[in-house]
Formats: sequence, C-alpha cells, structure tokens
Amino acid sequence: MNSRKLILYISSSLDGFIAGPNDDLSFLHPMQLEGEDYGYEAFVDTVDTVIVGRRTYDWVVNQGYDFPHTDKEGYILTSQPRPNQGSLTFYQGDLKELVQRLKSNNSQKHIFCDGGAEVVHQLLAAQLIDEIILSVVPVLLGAGTRLFKEGRPQQLLELLSSKSFESGLVQLHYRVK
Amino acid sequence: MNSRKLILYISSSLDGFIAGPNDDLSFLHPMQLEGEDYGYEAFVDTVDTVIVGRRTYDWVVNQGYDFPHTDKEGYILTSQPRPNQGSLTFYQGDLKELVQRLKSNNSQKHIFCDGGAEVVHQLLAAQLIDEIILSVVPVLLGAGTRLFKEGRPQQLLELLSSKSFESGLVQLHYRVK
Repeated sequence: MNSRKLILYISSSLDGFIAGPNDDLSFLHPMQLEGEDYGYEAFVDTVDTVIVGRRTYDWVVNQGYDFPHTDKEGYILTSQPRPNQGSLTFYQGDLKELVQRLKSNNSQKHIFCDGGAEVVHQLLAAQLIDEIILSVVPVLLGAGTRLFKEGRPQQLLELLSSKSFESGLVQLHYRVK
Repeated sequence: MNSRKLILYISSSLDGFIAGPNDDLSFLHPMQLEGEDYGYEAFVDTVDTVIVGRRTYDWVVNQGYDFPHTDKEGYILTSQPRPNQGSLTFYQGDLKELVQRLKSNNSQKHIFCDGGAEVVHQLLAAQLIDEIILSVVPVLLGAGTRLFKEGRPQQLLELLSSKSFESGLVQLHYRVK
C-alpha cells in the first residue's frame, strides 16, 4: 500500500484569511520569532514535491524572493502555458490526474500544497487533500483572500494534534477522512 | 474600573461555517458526548445578559426549543418591532449604545453574544467584542453560513488558551486587543 499523502500546510487569520487586502501578508510578521519555525523545516523534510498556484508563485517571485522549493519537484498550476524551469513544471493539465499520478509514485516522501486559495479550493473540491496543517494566527483581518471558498462537499476531519505557541499561534493538524 | 465584558462563545467548522446550507446544524451532533459540555455551563455561569440576533432567536423557537436564556436579561436584535417577553427585550435601537449601556452597568457578570453571523459582524465591525471563545469542530462544511463576514477592521488578538477534546473539537479563547 502506498501512503504518499497530499498535505496542505498553510497559515490563516482566525477569521480565515490567508492574506489581507492587496495580498498583504504583514499579519504574519509578529509570528516571526527567533528560533521558532512552527515545525516548518521538519515538515518540509517530509515532502519532496510541491504543488502551488501560478498566482501565488508569481507573487513570491515578484516580491523578489527566490521560489523556495527548487530542490523539490514543483508543479505550478496555470491556465497559461509557460516554459518549465529546472525542477519546476508549469502544469496545465487535469489536477486530479496529476495528484493521482504523484500519489501512485513510489516516493516515501509526501506532496506539499503551498497554496494559494484557488488551488486549495480545487484540491478540496476534488477531495484530493489527505491532511491539513493550519496555523491559526491570532488576528482578525476583516477582509482579504479567504482560505476556504464556498461550494465544496462536506468532509469529516480527524484531529491529529493541536499545539499552541508563545506567539499565540495555534497549529491544528487534521487528517481528512 | 468596570470590567464587564462582551464575549462571543460560538462553534464553527474548520472552514468557518456556523451552519451548513439551510441552517443545517447536524455537524454538531458528533460533538455531543455524554458528560462533555466543552465548558458551556461554566461559561454560562459567568454571564447574566445575552445578545442574540432575531433570525437566530426565531430559528431556535421554530425548531420547537425554548429559548435557553430566559433566566438572564436577553436582547434580541431586530429591525421589526415585537412585544417584549418576560426578561427578553426585542431591541431595535443602536447596537453600540446598547452594548455601552450594558458594559457600564455594575453587574459582575458578563454579556454573552450567542450569534448569529449578522450580529457577530455588527459587533466586530463596531469593535465591541472583548473576548472570543471559538470551538472549532473537525469538519469542512464546504458551504453554509459564515461566522466571519468581510468588511471589518483588522483587530489583533491575544490567545488566552487553547484546549483540545476527545471528540477532536479545539476550543480557542482569545482576548480582542
């Protein structure tokens, strides 16, 4: 039995926004404490493949950052063709087909969905996400980009763990049943 | 110094819905375990006044339940006049004025906002809520009534506690800064 999982690891405000208006991520700054990565590095060590939306990818690159997952197999989901770059594939095909192919692969490491909201919606709607690790940041943003859009099927969750941090962040880890 | 607080105590799915489509609350049923009230009775002992929206009130009554807070001072927020009933006032006036009057009252007990989404939105938009106790139910509803509407100011929160339960429910308690 292959147990390769697709895991959503993401942060949101208590009111469910992954960014404020105009893609503002400044609500995350107070969470950046020295020596505290909220388990991110340990999590990233368990994955070797990353799926991310084209809009999120462009945002990262346009901010002047390097795309952080170039050591992994990366799939940027897009509706516009774009040449592949190194380990990054700009993928226009069927999402379900991609995830099923990746899951049937023999790798012992998992697949990381790194957002954004549109990709999360499509993956949840197709019931392809196996685990959710949601870091709830202690703020109400009031407006912005919602993590969870409407129009998905109901899915039961199993709480695997819940951990609170000095900064007030609470990390919830669920298995999608 | 008077420290009478307005506290929102409410449940939602992980994706932020307080009810599924058609006011469906069946997602709460698996949370009803014998001998586990998630601190509800202890919380209710700390309040003597309840604010609730007219739509939520009617829903409770139309389901055939008695309104549960008749031992307390109750304010049903409504745009349509309706005769008061016992300790219940159908309130059409200014919400901020009501909450400020209640907070300046000498009672040692607090004020409970028991929903629904419209009242929560108005109270948060007016920055009148002092604490939030949110019970996150381990389910993605996919659609329904959102707890948090858009179009409010940003508000920082302080995590007071986080507690997980056998059922997978996680109760998050915040002070609004």
